[in-house]
Amino acid sequence: MSPERLARINAMLDKRQPDLTICMEEVHKPHNLAAMVRTADAVGVHRVHAIWPDQKTKLSGGTATGSQNWVDLKSHANIVDAVKALREQGMQIIATNLSDTAVDFREIDYTKPTAILMGQEKFGITKEALELADQDVIIPMVGMVQSLNVSVATALMLYEAQRQRQEAGMYDTRTLDDAECQRLLFEGGHP
Amino acid sequence: MSPERLARINAMLDKRQPDLTICMEEVHKPHNLAAMVRTADAVGVHRVHAIWPDQKTKLSGGTATGSQNWVDLKSHANIVDAVKALREQGMQIIATNLSDTAVDFREIDYTKPTAILMGQEKFGITKEALELADQDVIIPMVGMVQSLNVSVATALMLYEAQRQRQEAGMYDTRTLDDAECQRLLFEGGHP
Ligand SMILES: C[S@@+](CC[C@H](N)C(=O)[O-])C[C@H]1O[C@@H](n2cnc3c(N)ncnc32)[C@H](O)[C@@H]1O
Ligand SMILES: C[S@@+](CC[C@H](N)C(=O)[O-])C[C@H]1O[C@@H](n2cnc3c(N)ncnc32)[C@H](O)[C@@H]1O
Repeated sequence: MSPERLARINAMLDKRQPDLTICMEEVHKPHNLAAMVRTADAVGVHRVHAIWPDQKTKLSGGTATGSQNWVDLKSHANIVDAVKALREQGMQIIATNLSDTAVDFREIDYTKPTAILMGQEKFGITKEALELADQDVIIPMVGMVQSLNVSVATALMLYEAQRQRQEAGMYDTRTLDDAECQRLLFEGGHP
Repeated sequence: MSPERLARINAMLDKRQPDLTICMEEVHKPHNLAAMVRTADAVGVHRVHAIWPDQKTKLSGGTATGSQNWVDLKSHANIVDAVKALREQGMQIIATNLSDTAVDFREIDYTKPTAILMGQEKFGITKEALELADQDVIIPMVGMVQSLNVSVATALMLYEAQRQRQEAGMYDTRTLDDAECQRLLFEGGHP
């Protein structure tokens, strides 16, 4: 591995936020999945979580432009298992949802360990997921459409978290553990 | 038209921001175009601008979920004409661009009349467009990918504008002119 590439990967590892993640509940369009993982990488998410609508859906290449090599993907059999795993890591569970009880997405404290649930393109988040979450949030809209594209909504959530975490100095020191850093350095050196 | 629908359209018109827009420079993937117009509608953009890569590209239905019926689209032959038209409306021209000279996108005052230039999926914004703009801005990234999806970048720009404009009370009184309101009420009543 060239010194430049080593430095590039190390700079990325310095900024990784292991306690910030998204969980995709049956999101299925490849271009949405790709854009979501790409944005996750851009704000320093280390691992994303997914419940798949069927056996076939997978992250492919294309417009994820390589980010899937750097963002870990953990699949779960169902939403109960997913939320259980996230809670074991001490995360608050925030559900994005178009309801009257949802609070504005900017009101949440994302400097806490946080998992954000994103719903399926057509049907949104399941009732089950909503019940498991601590809070539901909405991104305000003043137009005629009922909802935003799911990858757009994901980016707005993650960049609000990025803004808060940057202000709190959370990008200033490495928090990703050594074993994971070594693994990524090794894999990045042997693509 | 039912009283409910009339009220719904009027509520939308109350929030329209005629002095906030995007200009899409040769963006060509239909799902990106659709997501961009959908987000524009959601923050109250009344009209978007486009320079098309070829004669065939057009906004189609699908995942724009009807927003193209409510957001006006103005096409321009080239970027020079587009910027000229926007400047005649007193707009500052902000180019989104992955350069070292670009400032953080949150540093701009979006309460001013503003047009945001968004670049093509693969090649980004043209040199010509950059020279015509007042300022280029970047959305910070700390991962391994080089850029964000263009519809994601558009949403982050527009929602930063939305946040600033909301704080400044710019969604509190109707600013869209009467003729345009009448046109949209008429068309919305006869879909
Ligand atoms: C296209 S939307 C689903 C719309 C679905 N009809 C519903 O009512 O939930 C897909 C996902 O994007 C996210 N989303 C879209 N617009 C949102 C908004 N304004 N606020 C919060 N989340 C949003 C949510 O995760 C949602 O489940
Ligand atoms: C996929 S990017 C184009 C990448 C191209 N290789 C370049 O260097 O510009 C498409 C468009 O999305 C916007 N964009 C993507 N990521 C951005 C970022 N981090 N900051 C500002 N604009 C961005 C810009 O409008 C860009 O022209």
